[in-house]
Amino acid sequence: MKRKVIITVFVITCLLSLNAFALNGLVDTDGKLEKVETSKYMGDTLWVLVAAFLVFFMQAGFAMVESGFTRAKNAVNILMKNLMDFSMGSVAYWAIGFAIMFGAGNAFMGTSGWFVPSESLAEGAATDTSVFSALEWSSVPTYAAWLFQLVFAATAATIVSGAMAERTQFKSYLIYSIFITGIIYPVVGHWIWGGGWLADVGVSDFAGSTVVHSTGGWLALTGAIVLGPRIGKYDGDGNPRPIAGHNLPLAALGVFILWLGWFGFNPGSQMGADAGPISHIAITTNLAAATGAILAMITAWLILGKPDAGMALNGALAGLVAITAGCAFVSPVSAAIIGALGGIVVVLSVLLFEKLRIDDPVGAISVHGTCGALGTILLGFFHEIGDTALGVFFGGGFGFLWAQIVGVVAVFVWCLVTGFILFYGIKAATGLRVTEEEEQAGLDYEEHGASAYPDFNVSSMR
Amino acid sequence: MKRKVIITVFVITCLLSLNAFALNGLVDTDGKLEKVETSKYMGDTLWVLVAAFLVFFMQAGFAMVESGFTRAKNAVNILMKNLMDFSMGSVAYWAIGFAIMFGAGNAFMGTSGWFVPSESLAEGAATDTSVFSALEWSSVPTYAAWLFQLVFAATAATIVSGAMAERTQFKSYLIYSIFITGIIYPVVGHWIWGGGWLADVGVSDFAGSTVVHSTGGWLALTGAIVLGPRIGKYDGDGNPRPIAGHNLPLAALGVFILWLGWFGFNPGSQMGADAGPISHIAITTNLAAATGAILAMITAWLILGKPDAGMALNGALAGLVAITAGCAFVSPVSAAIIGALGGIVVVLSVLLFEKLRIDDPVGAISVHGTCGALGTILLGFFHEIGDTALGVFFGGGFGFLWAQIVGVVAVFVWCLVTGFILFYGIKAATGLRVTEEEEQAGLDYEEHGASAYPDFNVSSMR
Amino acid sequence: MKRKVIITVFVITCLLSLNAFALNGLVDTDGKLEKVETSKYMGDTLWVLVAAFLVFFMQAGFAMVESGFTRAKNAVNILMKNLMDFSMGSVAYWAIGFAIMFGAGNAFMGTSGWFVPSESLAEGAATDTSVFSALEWSSVPTYAAWLFQLVFAATAATIVSGAMAERTQFKSYLIYSIFITGIIYPVVGHWIWGGGWLADVGVSDFAGSTVVHSTGGWLALTGAIVLGPRIGKYDGDGNPRPIAGHNLPLAALGVFILWLGWFGFNPGSQMGADAGPISHIAITTNLAAATGAILAMITAWLILGKPDAGMALNGALAGLVAITAGCAFVSPVSAAIIGALGGIVVVLSVLLFEKLRIDDPVGAISVHGTCGALGTILLGFFHEIGDTALGVFFGGGFGFLWAQIVGVVAVFVWCLVTGFILFYGIKAATGLRVTEEEEQAGLDYEEHGASAYPDFNVSSMR
Repeated sequence: MKRKVIITVFVITCLLSLNAFALNGLVDTDGKLEKVETSKYMGDTLWVLVAAFLVFFMQAGFAMVESGFTRAKNAVNILMKNLMDFSMGSVAYWAIGFAIMFGAGNAFMGTSGWFVPSESLAEGAATDTSVFSALEWSSVPTYAAWLFQLVFAATAATIVSGAMAERTQFKSYLIYSIFITGIIYPVVGHWIWGGGWLADVGVSDFAGSTVVHSTGGWLALTGAIVLGPRIGKYDGDGNPRPIAGHNLPLAALGVFILWLGWFGFNPGSQMGADAGPISHIAITTNLAAATGAILAMITAWLILGKPDAGMALNGALAGLVAITAGCAFVSPVSAAIIGALGGIVVVLSVLLFEKLRIDDPVGAISVHGTCGALGTILLGFFHEIGDTALGVFFGGGFGFLWAQIVGVVAVFVWCLVTGFILFYGIKAATGLRVTEEEEQAGLDYEEHGASAYPDFNVSSMR
Repeated sequence: MKRKVIITVFVITCLLSLNAFALNGLVDTDGKLEKVETSKYMGDTLWVLVAAFLVFFMQAGFAMVESGFTRAKNAVNILMKNLMDFSMGSVAYWAIGFAIMFGAGNAFMGTSGWFVPSESLAEGAATDTSVFSALEWSSVPTYAAWLFQLVFAATAATIVSGAMAERTQFKSYLIYSIFITGIIYPVVGHWIWGGGWLADVGVSDFAGSTVVHSTGGWLALTGAIVLGPRIGKYDGDGNPRPIAGHNLPLAALGVFILWLGWFGFNPGSQMGADAGPISHIAITTNLAAATGAILAMITAWLILGKPDAGMALNGALAGLVAITAGCAFVSPVSAAIIGALGGIVVVLSVLLFEKLRIDDPVGAISVHGTCGALGTILLGFFHEIGDTALGVFFGGGFGFLWAQIVGVVAVFVWCLVTGFILFYGIKAATGLRVTEEEEQAGLDYEEHGASAYPDFNVSSMR
Repeated sequence: MKRKVIITVFVITCLLSLNAFALNGLVDTDGKLEKVETSKYMGDTLWVLVAAFLVFFMQAGFAMVESGFTRAKNAVNILMKNLMDFSMGSVAYWAIGFAIMFGAGNAFMGTSGWFVPSESLAEGAATDTSVFSALEWSSVPTYAAWLFQLVFAATAATIVSGAMAERTQFKSYLIYSIFITGIIYPVVGHWIWGGGWLADVGVSDFAGSTVVHSTGGWLALTGAIVLGPRIGKYDGDGNPRPIAGHNLPLAALGVFILWLGWFGFNPGSQMGADAGPISHIAITTNLAAATGAILAMITAWLILGKPDAGMALNGALAGLVAITAGCAFVSPVSAAIIGALGGIVVVLSVLLFEKLRIDDPVGAISVHGTCGALGTILLGFFHEIGDTALGVFFGGGFGFLWAQIVGVVAVFVWCLVTGFILFYGIKAATGLRVTEEEEQAGLDYEEHGASAYPDFNVSSMR
């Protein structure tokens, strides 16, 4: 009797155990675990794509800022530039840029992954880690990473056009867009984000104060130098004269769009939907923009006597550029300080470049070049995060600060050298600047046979 | 033999059982369950952040609406106001506003959580419920909740500037922005959303018809009263004269941006990515905007004889403001009715305030104040939802309706009292209104040394 | 002794087994599996809603493009049209459109689901598959699907207004918006996406090159034909004269907004957050837009002698329209080719319709009609995807190509027939076109009693 009971119970136990095991084997290991991974994969991809869309929209922001801050007679030209640099950049970055930046290669550049090899559409097709091992830390599909990185590359190219506005040939603009998005920017990106030599040095640039903004800003500097100032920017004694932008509402709209886009730029650079970090980054980004705008307004008020709108708008951008390197690594207090310093420095930088007879119609060199470098170095001081928690000020020590300085200088040198080669090369080959008559008449009529505002009496006598 | 077999089977069973148990223990309890929670946490955070970005973008919408509906000679001033109120508000709400609104405290205000205490960046660091217990119903990180609430606070402040446009000193604007985002708005928020006394009364305001919009609208009312009407708004006999906005396309763009932003404002107030509710809220929000625009157009057509564009645009906003309180609690049919009533009422309200010699250049008092109150009270009639399903009209009964009325009246009184103190205080301390000469010449030149459109022949003789 | 040990171990094993089973039963089947499903459901819904918001924003894009490409004296009218077509469309598509498109019915149209039956707000309330079985492949709530489809319907209606701009009565516009969003468009949608006869034929149109864009474009064609050209568009000899748009920056902003919106339009049409596919679709969409802009610019440069801004902007849109049918089914290379062909064809199409004396102020017929048909047919050639992977060019064979052609022709015929009935009907009933005096003076003054730019000296002599 007893034995029979024991055996019966035993058999039931076996069945239950097998059942439990089967459930585990079937549902857990093969089914649910995969589904849970899929959820994370889904969330990460969703986040990266939404962020990429926001960064794409920054093209509209740049278009509005750059046309708003310049004269009506050149507005069509600037809008066309913005449209075409993104279009040309989309193709160039596809063909070679992404491969140079993230493809397997050497310390200088990637040498594989041209035209971004096709991948399966099947769910679960994550980053191809054999070619793009530099991106294997992010779980999103290669195509999502490509789109996100593409809109960054286009940002770097767009920055340049602002400083070169109102006097550059349309044709030469098309040429340099390809070189910047296809080669010059991706090489910098490879150095810091693609496993290149500056990554080995230990340079930290979370979302691209240096990689994107300084690169754009320093290339803009070389372009502005090679071009020379606009006619009428300096009087006979060499003193700068203000050339006000023709449409402040457009410029303000552009700054709001850029601020919005930065919520993709910085939190998106996490390249995953990690709730804590992306919330933290969104906060530091916003605070730096706010203090940048406030401090730039105050600085301008003190120096120029009025709360200048252009300076305040550029101050918000300066704060955003400055926090971009460290948005994930500093506390809100530090972010507020970094943004504020960006706001002060951008006003001084604009006035300095103006004195140096480097004519930058929209302040792109100061906003992106100067404040990008500033933010990267400030991260050396304000880095507060160990592995998981805030709290340690100057957390990286002198070695980290030194690495940041090396990164800033290296990118500065690279951009100056390649920028001068590029712009002098274009100047020699096809000409870089329009004729004096074209510049006086406005580029819209001469280059595009159009007027931005044909129903209005637009003064072209400025 | 038999025994050996039994023992062997038994041992295997044990191992299988242990295996099953181990898998359960390891994967389920410690690993997967946490991961599943992480997925929900991730999705909620993603949703709240995207919604916050959309609500941030409403700043651009307000900037375009307010500058488009006013004169060209004051456009720079209005844009600067919008930029700076968000910037000042970001700092003030960080320092004290969030603590007053959601920090642990008493029935009147929160008294802890100043400067939003830092939190770990580690994944899984959710809302700090000891300080911000009023937010513990939402699972997102404190920083995500902070950003979402910050953009709401800035909205309340921005509403005020519309009604005070074209005659207010820039300096005084900076001052009142701080008080509104730092104190006056957060106290209202605490009363209804932060566990204060109106929450105890049972006031229901899902996304802020009263908390955000009425607060902004009633403060705008006090500001407009203290300032008095613009020069030229009323003729010698006290009859109102139209002062048309200078750029309707900008205003229309602004309304589209605000409509877009409302898809963050209302569905985001769920503060989680709960599929059913956020879909429902998006639908009710959109329908109310649509019927608001249609009915405002028809009402204006009947009263004014033309389908007035300004009224139709404000009608869309009126529908949005009116549905904000009840978007989660009413059916699509009810939403369409609430929006339609908002569209009718906003036209009548604009005409009424104009007759009362309260000059509101953009209609902010009517759109946000009147329709915010309207929507909150209408929710008392149209509340249809029990715990999970639609169907019971007047679901809250008279007690609920009474609570809604108490909420509306309490916020009205609070805003009138604090608003008059604030604006008379500023008037006494530093002056609130520009001089007659400045107003005639336009604020842009006098306050900012700039012109919004220097390439155009702008008439400043209005 | 031995026996006791065995029994003890046995009992423990039983308990462990039961424990394991209990855990499996409780957590896995009832708890976690549901939660995992919830995660996917949550992610899908989040994606569809965000995409819907982006597509909604395209209304702002169309408003800016259409007003920017026309004259200042008609700007208010066009903005009002855009506001009201979305508002009227929101109501019409709610009342009957969604039911006709996706409700259970016959091969011609849906006949159930009027006013979108209410659904529970409870989490887990997915699509009501008894009424809307055509949508059961997507897991999102009915209300999310409704919002996403609504913004598509409004897009189709908005397209029409561009081609009819500057000469159509406001009243008649309100009427035809209702018919298009309520009946004409939903019938096409039912044929291809709602399980109608073209779905049975095998027509493939992922995101609506034909369903949305061709429908809008061909209806625009009938409208433009019935209206006739604007006064002054053709000289005495019948040669076309250019009538330049009044605000290129607005038009450019509009194109950037549309491009942004297309990241909702195409990847959102997956109606789920499937990481691989949505990333793929975002990439093909972007590449086609880029090559469309580049090739349209080059084509215009060759034919017209200048890199025309209007053509380049329309080229980007043409690329986007062309890739919309196949964005999920073609490789990036194919997408670049499809976009490029769209860019070339749109320039030729614009010049052709101009020669045919069909006056389309913004190029809507060419962008949406011609390039929508082009993209749908090109998909017949470039379809490369089997179930999961890219690789097979002309993957559908001749049968598939034939189905695409049938689909394009059927929609063309339907739109021409219903369009002529609609517009001739309105013409007979209430009149379609404004008087010559109204057209000369501008629609803004006559129809709305307003001016878009009262502070500016606007030339109305064009």
